[in-house]
Amino acid sequence: MKTARPTINDEVAAFKRARTLEAATDLFYEKGYNNSTLDDVAERLGVTKPFIYKNFGNKHMLLATICAQGIQGALGEMEAALAQNAGPAETLRIFVPRYVEAIIAAQKSIAIHIREEKNLLPEDANRLAALRQKFMGQVQGVLEAGKKAGEVDVPDPRISAFAIVGAVSWLTFWFHPEGPLSPEELTERMTAVILNLLRSGGVRLTA
Amino acid sequence: MKTARPTINDEVAAFKRARTLEAATDLFYEKGYNNSTLDDVAERLGVTKPFIYKNFGNKHMLLATICAQGIQGALGEMEAALAQNAGPAETLRIFVPRYVEAIIAAQKSIAIHIREEKNLLPEDANRLAALRQKFMGQVQGVLEAGKKAGEVDVPDPRISAFAIVGAVSWLTFWFHPEGPLSPEELTERMTAVILNLLRSGGVRLTA
Repeated sequence: MKTARPTINDEVAAFKRARTLEAATDLFYEKGYNNSTLDDVAERLGVTKPFIYKNFGNKHMLLATICAQGIQGALGEMEAALAQNAGPAETLRIFVPRYVEAIIAAQKSIAIHIREEKNLLPEDANRLAALRQKFMGQVQGVLEAGKKAGEVDVPDPRISAFAIVGAVSWLTFWFHPEGPLSPEELTERMTAVILNLLRSGGVRLTA
Repeated sequence: MKTARPTINDEVAAFKRARTLEAATDLFYEKGYNNSTLDDVAERLGVTKPFIYKNFGNKHMLLATICAQGIQGALGEMEAALAQNAGPAETLRIFVPRYVEAIIAAQKSIAIHIREEKNLLPEDANRLAALRQKFMGQVQGVLEAGKKAGEVDVPDPRISAFAIVGAVSWLTFWFHPEGPLSPEELTERMTAVILNLLRSGGVRLTA
């Protein structure tokens, strides 16, 4: 009888799937998509190429799965924060640190997405653009609600949403997890910077 | 007799150099560095390949020149702002709008830099990394001075510098100059968002 509880085989399959994604991400990140083959991925893992086909389809589909990780992580954290049904400032306090962590975790996937965008199939590129648009709308919505409630003081919720997402996402290009700043410290310090940006009642920097 | 005043020939050469850079930037942006040849660049322009060699050296050197444009523009604006010898808040008010404009102008070059980093020669990559480090140090320095003077309220000048640079640089990936928001409007709105983030005397968003 089939139940909802995962069997050991399910768990092994999920583990192998995750490891395959990780190995392909490392490979595409280091060598570039065009210089990598599914044979290379299989070889790094000791799995067979049919295993990869079965789990991820072809190389384009594997790329699309990798490229989706950053935006899926961001959306997941936003939806978890929204599900708490807290006020906008509290939603941001829940969301921002989890979002920074998600971006740190997806650093390589985000870099691959940006570098290899031209290698995505149009339908995959469109699907990812729609997810990104959904996410940006949610961030903007929380800022708008916060502004309305007097909890967040930003001059322009739409551009502020892009500024916050940019401030966090840009870590993809400068943060080295093996450097002097640990992922935990970066999360704490970046969260403080972002939430400081959102404080209410501030006096404008005047001329 | 040779004087400092540019001759018509100098001006024509500078014009052709600028147009070549522009054509190569468009080409590398649209087709990718590895799919572009110097013949393609020459063809787009109606110049000869020897003209390109004479002005930019080989294809790697042309790529390095393109990739340097974003950081050179940013550094140039920071140095112009610092040269005013104003206080830190005033320096930021001078710098931020010019910086946003510089990033909008260098959008394609920045995207090429990020995508094609692996195709840079190590000495070029190192030179660009040094310029970037210099720029980040200057941004951080202005924020530190502003914090000390009580003109800027940021919790962490180093991470705030990365956040501001990220907030602006990320427009590379979402801003379409032919879209509903003009470059002038984006400059104005992004400047307001960034300077708002730096305002002093704000009340922290508290739990």
